[in-house]
Amino acid sequence: MDKSKRRFIKQTFGLMAATSLVAGGTKHAAAAGPPEVPPSMKGPGAGMGEYGTPAKYERKVTRAFIRSQPGTTGSGASRTPLESLDGMVTPSGLHFERHHSGVPDIDPDQHRLLIHGLVKRPLIFTVDALLRYPMISRIHFLECSGNSGALYQPAPPNLTAGETHGLVSCSEWTGVPLRLLLEEAGVDRSAPWMLAEGGDAAAMSRSIPMAKAMDDAMLALFQNGERLRPENGYPVRLFLPGWEGNMSVKWLRRLKIVSAPIMTKDETSRYTDLQADGKSLMFTYPMDVKSVITRPSHGMTLSGAGLHQISGIAWSGNGTIRKVEVSTDGGRTWTDAPLVAPVLPRALTRFRLAWTWDGAATVLKSRATDDTGALQPERQQFVSEHGNNAIFHFHAIQAWSVAANGEVKHVYA
Amino acid sequence: MDKSKRRFIKQTFGLMAATSLVAGGTKHAAAAGPPEVPPSMKGPGAGMGEYGTPAKYERKVTRAFIRSQPGTTGSGASRTPLESLDGMVTPSGLHFERHHSGVPDIDPDQHRLLIHGLVKRPLIFTVDALLRYPMISRIHFLECSGNSGALYQPAPPNLTAGETHGLVSCSEWTGVPLRLLLEEAGVDRSAPWMLAEGGDAAAMSRSIPMAKAMDDAMLALFQNGERLRPENGYPVRLFLPGWEGNMSVKWLRRLKIVSAPIMTKDETSRYTDLQADGKSLMFTYPMDVKSVITRPSHGMTLSGAGLHQISGIAWSGNGTIRKVEVSTDGGRTWTDAPLVAPVLPRALTRFRLAWTWDGAATVLKSRATDDTGALQPERQQFVSEHGNNAIFHFHAIQAWSVAANGEVKHVYA
Repeated sequence: MDKSKRRFIKQTFGLMAATSLVAGGTKHAAAAGPPEVPPSMKGPGAGMGEYGTPAKYERKVTRAFIRSQPGTTGSGASRTPLESLDGMVTPSGLHFERHHSGVPDIDPDQHRLLIHGLVKRPLIFTVDALLRYPMISRIHFLECSGNSGALYQPAPPNLTAGETHGLVSCSEWTGVPLRLLLEEAGVDRSAPWMLAEGGDAAAMSRSIPMAKAMDDAMLALFQNGERLRPENGYPVRLFLPGWEGNMSVKWLRRLKIVSAPIMTKDETSRYTDLQADGKSLMFTYPMDVKSVITRPSHGMTLSGAGLHQISGIAWSGNGTIRKVEVSTDGGRTWTDAPLVAPVLPRALTRFRLAWTWDGAATVLKSRATDDTGALQPERQQFVSEHGNNAIFHFHAIQAWSVAANGEVKHVYA
Repeated sequence: MDKSKRRFIKQTFGLMAATSLVAGGTKHAAAAGPPEVPPSMKGPGAGMGEYGTPAKYERKVTRAFIRSQPGTTGSGASRTPLESLDGMVTPSGLHFERHHSGVPDIDPDQHRLLIHGLVKRPLIFTVDALLRYPMISRIHFLECSGNSGALYQPAPPNLTAGETHGLVSCSEWTGVPLRLLLEEAGVDRSAPWMLAEGGDAAAMSRSIPMAKAMDDAMLALFQNGERLRPENGYPVRLFLPGWEGNMSVKWLRRLKIVSAPIMTKDETSRYTDLQADGKSLMFTYPMDVKSVITRPSHGMTLSGAGLHQISGIAWSGNGTIRKVEVSTDGGRTWTDAPLVAPVLPRALTRFRLAWTWDGAATVLKSRATDDTGALQPERQQFVSEHGNNAIFHFHAIQAWSVAANGEVKHVYA
């Protein structure tokens, strides 16, 4: 391996040291001659289409762990199959879902958004009106505060990366800075709170500090280039970068400027964080620094000792990922994993690291640090502080065991 | 308007000077009371789904101008409806298509990639093997060299932005650096060319300079987070950032290292650029600096004088967009339009600018400059140099006329 290649590989992939790039030496074959002409070359293929879909061979790649609460329609969640994806962007068809009374069918021509309360001029906007305003675009993750909630449980659940961490997704969001509309309505600048209400049957409602509303809050109209999908709030949703997903109220129909939090059902009976001492935390907005290795992960089997590629995602609702460390020995030693550019604030950040597996049983972990200096905690420490009763805001280190036979499983370690 | 708001708006949107953010004053209504409770709040919505699709109200947003050559299946193109999109990412379902014999149906378990020719070790790779290699992710545009080819015609065609410019799209591509595989095969470093052949019935084939193959060429396996779509080369395509789209050979089955270009049908009878003097240019690889205003654009109607938002995209196969200027007076004066971060090399770059329309007929234009200093030419100058017989590599300035009644049309101006 020449010096420039070694430098290229080191810069790009980190740990690469082996001269053979694939493990086991069985992953490609010396070619005696060209492969046979495949059937695909013997006749014309399919025509073009108005709107494309994934290959039929990828039909197994679906949202994971779709669960609705008994007796309800669409009151539950579906998850992004993180272990099947790579890169930073989540395709909108696989963005996680969390609904409180299903996905409403909203005709954009009929939809109205009301801004009222402590404003000089209460205003009603059509969607067409919103589309006339100045827009911004930002690549941001969205994470349900219940993501990884099962990991508070004393025993490790038998779940894949998507099933434990798939209530996070990442999109390019385009929409109107909320601040422009609030200022046009003549918002009372001393008013500290804003109620946001969705147009679903649950009237999903949250109280939002005005400081956030006037900072980076957006009324999102486009996701990954096209108009929002129904399950992501079509025709318009609130988007609060880095904050727990439920506050980015979907199908947004009402913003009321108020002098105190409303104490809606969605911030009292739900989305409060029960702690070990029996008290609950309220209004826990930003999603903390977090990471997970998506490959290899639970349910996969390594084909043998040798060189493997570790790939994963990291994110922080408080800023930008500064560092991701990977341990391939259960946390004894850690190696910085190169981050994939562009590394953006409050966006998923892909990390990748080459790993030469010696074939012995071990445990893989990742831990992220954000630009506030916050470091993802070990699970034992996190649970000892927060207890086993909580559901929300779990962000401890995730461990995957690798057995000598190559089987990868979720473990607490 | 206070000073900090003015600064925020200026930084974010450029020209904003009016105090009212919407034109005509008809875009929102003072609220007498809350809007009626909509039907969507009176009963539960739909359940969750394995793979999401756009809202039924957006069914009109499809690939545009789907054309197959007479007597063929899938030998033609479909275009991204740029005027309906915003942001930088193109949803994969709306990525443009250009096929030479339709979309082949390729079972990834059966697919093989051969690397042979001037190498020490000819190798055959399965898709599973490719997935084991180190990967990179990059956000890049892909543009067909025939994009905007109709604009060489002497009379302006009656077409939308998607119909004239929609053979460009932008995705996050993830895959294996080609260089790693070529080095593993023991490529002869003095060999100047590589043949790439697709697994479609057209055996789409191009000769590629080894310098590009060893630089930033990638074997793409993922697009926007998920595995490639069939129409974008599933299960694996070559990807050559910034170069004309047909060279990023889809359904890649063979790479042969050779000592001279092969002169395939796809680089002799096609994808050569007939000039005014009757000579043809061959091997014109990078796509030149280019931009187009997507809103307002042909087919839209402005609702009246007042403040409007101009939005568009710019890109260059030679590097990074450094500047986009917009003219709202037919090219007499130009204003820098703010670019939407992140501004990435060989990626679509969104620009946006507020514009106060006085209600008189005018012409809108945009012109991009890349970081090599190249500036998009006026159409008249470009056609006077290249003639009217060419199809490929049109990248001149696009003009939209605005009539006093608000109608927007494509013009040569």
